Amino acid sequence: MKNKVAIFIGSISDEEKMSPCSEVLSSLGIPHLFTVASAHRTPERVQRLIKELEEQGCKVFICAAGMAAHLAGAVAAKTIRPVIGVPLTASALGGMDALLATVQMPPGFPVGTVALDSGGARNAAWLAAQILALEDQEMAQKIRQARQKMIEGVEKAGADLESRFSKNPS
Amino acid sequence: MKNKVAIFIGSISDEEKMSPCSEVLSSLGIPHLFTVASAHRTPERVQRLIKELEEQGCKVFICAAGMAAHLAGAVAAKTIRPVIGVPLTASALGGMDALLATVQMPPGFPVGTVALDSGGARNAAWLAAQILALEDQEMAQKIRQARQKMIEGVEKAGADLESRFSKNPS
Amino acid sequence: MKNKVAIFIGSISDEEKMSPCSEVLSSLGIPHLFTVASAHRTPERVQRLIKELEEQGCKVFICAAGMAAHLAGAVAAKTIRPVIGVPLTASALGGMDALLATVQMPPGFPVGTVALDSGGARNAAWLAAQILALEDQEMAQKIRQARQKMIEGVEKAGADLESRFSKNPS
Amino acid sequence: MKNKVAIFIGSISDEEKMSPCSEVLSSLGIPHLFTVASAHRTPERVQRLIKELEEQGCKVFICAAGMAAHLAGAVAAKTIRPVIGVPLTASALGGMDALLATVQMPPGFPVGTVALDSGGARNAAWLAAQILALEDQEMAQKIRQARQKMIEGVEKAGADLESRFSKNPS
Amino acid sequence: MKNKVAIFIGSISDEEKMSPCSEVLSSLGIPHLFTVASAHRTPERVQRLIKELEEQGCKVFICAAGMAAHLAGAVAAKTIRPVIGVPLTASALGGMDALLATVQMPPGFPVGTVALDSGGARNAAWLAAQILALEDQEMAQKIRQARQKMIEGVEKAGADLESRFSKNPS
Amino acid sequence: MKNKVAIFIGSISDEEKMSPCSEVLSSLGIPHLFTVASAHRTPERVQRLIKELEEQGCKVFICAAGMAAHLAGAVAAKTIRPVIGVPLTASALGGMDALLATVQMPPGFPVGTVALDSGGARNAAWLAAQILALEDQEMAQKIRQARQKMIEGVEKAGADLESRFSKNPS
Amino acid sequence: MKNKVAIFIGSISDEEKMSPCSEVLSSLGIPHLFTVASAHRTPERVQRLIKELEEQGCKVFICAAGMAAHLAGAVAAKTIRPVIGVPLTASALGGMDALLATVQMPPGFPVGTVALDSGGARNAAWLAAQILALEDQEMAQKIRQARQKMIEGVEKAGADLESRFSKNPS
Amino acid sequence: MKNKVAIFIGSISDEEKMSPCSEVLSSLGIPHLFTVASAHRTPERVQRLIKELEEQGCKVFICAAGMAAHLAGAVAAKTIRPVIGVPLTASALGGMDALLATVQMPPGFPVGTVALDSGGARNAAWLAAQILALEDQEMAQKIRQARQKMIEGVEKAGADLESRFSKNPS
Repeated sequence: MKNKVAIFIGSISDEEKMSPCSEVLSSLGIPHLFTVASAHRTPERVQRLIKELEEQGCKVFICAAGMAAHLAGAVAAKTIRPVIGVPLTASALGGMDALLATVQMPPGFPVGTVALDSGGARNAAWLAAQILALEDQEMAQKIRQARQKMIEGVEKAGADLESRFSKNPS
Repeated sequence: MKNKVAIFIGSISDEEKMSPCSEVLSSLGIPHLFTVASAHRTPERVQRLIKELEEQGCKVFICAAGMAAHLAGAVAAKTIRPVIGVPLTASALGGMDALLATVQMPPGFPVGTVALDSGGARNAAWLAAQILALEDQEMAQKIRQARQKMIEGVEKAGADLESRFSKNPS
Repeated sequence: MKNKVAIFIGSISDEEKMSPCSEVLSSLGIPHLFTVASAHRTPERVQRLIKELEEQGCKVFICAAGMAAHLAGAVAAKTIRPVIGVPLTASALGGMDALLATVQMPPGFPVGTVALDSGGARNAAWLAAQILALEDQEMAQKIRQARQKMIEGVEKAGADLESRFSKNPS
Repeated sequence: MKNKVAIFIGSISDEEKMSPCSEVLSSLGIPHLFTVASAHRTPERVQRLIKELEEQGCKVFICAAGMAAHLAGAVAAKTIRPVIGVPLTASALGGMDALLATVQMPPGFPVGTVALDSGGARNAAWLAAQILALEDQEMAQKIRQARQKMIEGVEKAGADLESRFSKNPS
Repeated sequence: MKNKVAIFIGSISDEEKMSPCSEVLSSLGIPHLFTVASAHRTPERVQRLIKELEEQGCKVFICAAGMAAHLAGAVAAKTIRPVIGVPLTASALGGMDALLATVQMPPGFPVGTVALDSGGARNAAWLAAQILALEDQEMAQKIRQARQKMIEGVEKAGADLESRFSKNPS
Repeated sequence: MKNKVAIFIGSISDEEKMSPCSEVLSSLGIPHLFTVASAHRTPERVQRLIKELEEQGCKVFICAAGMAAHLAGAVAAKTIRPVIGVPLTASALGGMDALLATVQMPPGFPVGTVALDSGGARNAAWLAAQILALEDQEMAQKIRQARQKMIEGVEKAGADLESRFSKNPS
Repeated sequence: MKNKVAIFIGSISDEEKMSPCSEVLSSLGIPHLFTVASAHRTPERVQRLIKELEEQGCKVFICAAGMAAHLAGAVAAKTIRPVIGVPLTASALGGMDALLATVQMPPGFPVGTVALDSGGARNAAWLAAQILALEDQEMAQKIRQARQKMIEGVEKAGADLESRFSKNPS
Repeated sequence: MKNKVAIFIGSISDEEKMSPCSEVLSSLGIPHLFTVASAHRTPERVQRLIKELEEQGCKVFICAAGMAAHLAGAVAAKTIRPVIGVPLTASALGGMDALLATVQMPPGFPVGTVALDSGGARNAAWLAAQILALEDQEMAQKIRQARQKMIEGVEKAGADLESRFSKNPS
């Protein structure tokens, strides 16, 4: 199946933080490539992958990196497909370095940046799915169903908490 | 013409910072609504506008706000269309408040966040255009042409700077 | 007994950090609801709970959330009862995201923000109690007694420390 | 008329930033004292004012200060009435010093902190009014009316912006 | 022996971080009081201790606290003896809250602030000793000897490191 | 007259921000040297000045610098007299660079750091005076009188503000 | 004359801030190219310029950019000549974005980062000169002479300040 | 063999973080000294080492320190050889203190600053090697080979990740 979304991580050490991104895409049945591509070490690989993926019909690029996180920006410079950036915590600075290096792009080369680390990993997948859903009613339906489940999860957690506390108030 | 993109500002005082967003969309011929809608003061208005715009076929929501910038998140809670957030500087904290309040969304409700202030305003429009261009070859062509102009602008500025300095070295 | 105070947490994962809030309220004999309600996942639930609680005579809403902590602001948009916000640490940014997203509210929709995490959880309860005590002399008396105990605790800890060090100077 | 609310500023140079607080209280017909009281320079004055105001029936203390903003905390140490803190920008640090020094209070001595500077000044007044409105239906009605006006203001500003842009698109 | 220096900690939980301060003072033979005194919980105790210590001839006050660290400022408001502040890390904000709340004092009420946590604890003791040494040649000699030992420590550590690496280069 | 205090500024461009330090010392009749000495450009000058000043009986060194503010630390490395550091705002970082570079000294070489910029300039002078006052009753008296004037200033400003607002409420 | 150093700015709007870099190089007689090259808009231009400059014998690349400052990193990915990065202030974040995006490079692709804005512009030139001076005794001599002038400048400024203050003490 | 590069650490406790710097230099066959030298405790040792190393022909100084990291600046003040600074995390502030104290040097005394902690340690070695390679073709070749290996590492990690995920999609 042709990949609709690509997930690039700047280093194999980022795999664990970005696996939830791949999991959300898989749960929605979105074919995707999950691979390593470094803006600094392998600029040619980045460029080659973008070209191959665009030819396959890949519509959204998700790029995750830490520190001076240039990967999303480097991809944004080479494609006009939407690029989503996930800043990762990889130094003592709490991810502020990756966040600013990802979000503060110059005019013409946007990176739609999501939250730090695994929460952002999930949201990058959701945002990609929402973009695909613009032309895919089935995908839209899946997203709505997932949101419905989240609502039910909160309702249930709320009821549980209320019941535990009313029985056994702290 | 039906609006394809909506720009919401949290307060009329944000108009100037977000006008470049409207200008970029207009330059690309993208019909859009540019209006005021406050997450806190007018949650019903936000909800009503989203409904009306979705029925018109609006595909992307751009939300700009300062301080505890909840507008993009409030919109993201009510639609599954992609939401782009523009954090605005509106306090002495240099926009850090708006940036974090926009980007750090919980799983399931992504806001694709762009740079602060007018640079981000422009990039929100470019990102919206890139999303529309996924199904619109003409739009894709316009974006590529705009990027070509940017390249020429840099080349020309570079040549000018080089020539000024070689004639009259500092 | 009718709830006088409500504690909303944005996610069940916040339960542990906010339990001290419930404990302080219980220690003062203040009936309260402790439940889960997410501003983004369950805006309708938030709205319904506020309505039910107001009808019960609930006077103060305490809202705790992490990251782009919109919960307190979303509640403040729907009630004119005082809203107290507790920012929680839920990312590598040390809670700065939740603090700014909670405190920097626009005019007309204040959130009285207290300290981060479990210290703030306790203080949200104390502040709620102080508000209730404006019309409840017994509650005022309880708060004064609790403060008196704190004074005695410091005096005792000070005496202990002095005695340990005078006997066995470092 | 007896003062229901007190506004303390740490220095006369803070008057301009805090005047909006007094204006909001006046617009709601809330009698209040607006004065200068420094935690460091005049701890006795702070203590005396609190005592006098409590005897008058003053219910809420609003304290505004910049830098190592201890004023709200010093007041919170001397009263069990609710204390609202307004951090002010008074150094090159963008108000972060005053925000943290105001909000990060230890358990038992809460300061309900609002936004920085004049926005926070207004919100301190709104929060004080919301607390008073718990026992004052007329005040509650005034707050609801003020919120209704804010809604109308946003609706009108939105309509104006839409009409300007539809006539003369950028 | 009369105490020449006082160490106040805002809470008994700060004992461990401040013990090195007491240890340095003891190593220099400086009699001192190490006790607990909270600016918010026990303002009267703070005031009483200052008075008693001044009467004993105590010359320097060292105050350590975390979060909205008002203790040093509260002491500075009540004495004209030099006050040294040690900001402690007690929240997820990495001590930035305590640092700013300690150092950013208003004119007339200086707090000589040292580094965060146990490094600062030691330096508070050294600074107190340097102040005492202005009128105490023996103390000055002890400080010079301690510095000489530090020099020797660095020389030795350097020689060891060089020798390990020259024998067994990495 | 022999200088009791020295004020070093890292660059002549810091003169304006540090003049208030000299003014406070002069107002208290404290003879002092106010000069330029750069840690990086003129380490020999720094060393020579320290030696000359110590021989004159200079008791306190006040050092003010911006950016990577090493001046106070460099002086602390060469004297055991108390060193007071004033961090100055000299870049877009709001003085955070100078503050951290001044306060975070390693054990054994304390710099008593005061607030940023001209407020800190004044406080450096007050702290120096408080140190001198330990052995100078007349100086102690002057400081107490100055504090008394500050109290009167606050009382008067408070009375003025109250009277303006009671006559002409906002 | 062949260029020994290249200065790349990410946008012509950075010219003013980086002119001091060119001025220092010119004052030392170092032939250099000063031009515009954007990492995102013109990656091919960046690559072509590096190739041409390396063939000319250019030894050091100085790259200045603001916001998500990727330029220096993009150059570092394409050359093994030393790359010096100058972070520029170009948003409300005070240059922190550019600083972190420049300095936090991954292993193998260092960017020697200097201070923000025009101070850093000058230092980039000095650092380039120091690298060239490793193999150029004349250049080393020029740098030593420049440092000597700086020493004299400080000595003179110090003498002036001392004399102004001793004649007319504040 | 004469040392071409020197690595100074401010304290023996920094050895572990800086060992990777020594390892990279060794892997490239660059003779170097790895020793301890504190700017504050041993300014004479710093000065003596610089002199000895310069006489040996040492070309690059790498200096690593935490907190108010003055070591690189102190070395930069005493040599015109290029100085590379590695900021180390040594307090709760996440290394921001060391980063700013290292990078924000005044004009004329540059420190080429690299990333925080062990990543920066490696990059300091790479940057030193790149400087040496300007006059050493063999060294240039080694660096190019090392970069080639990094490319192959990314390609292999990418292929592995792709193959794991295509076999067993999440």
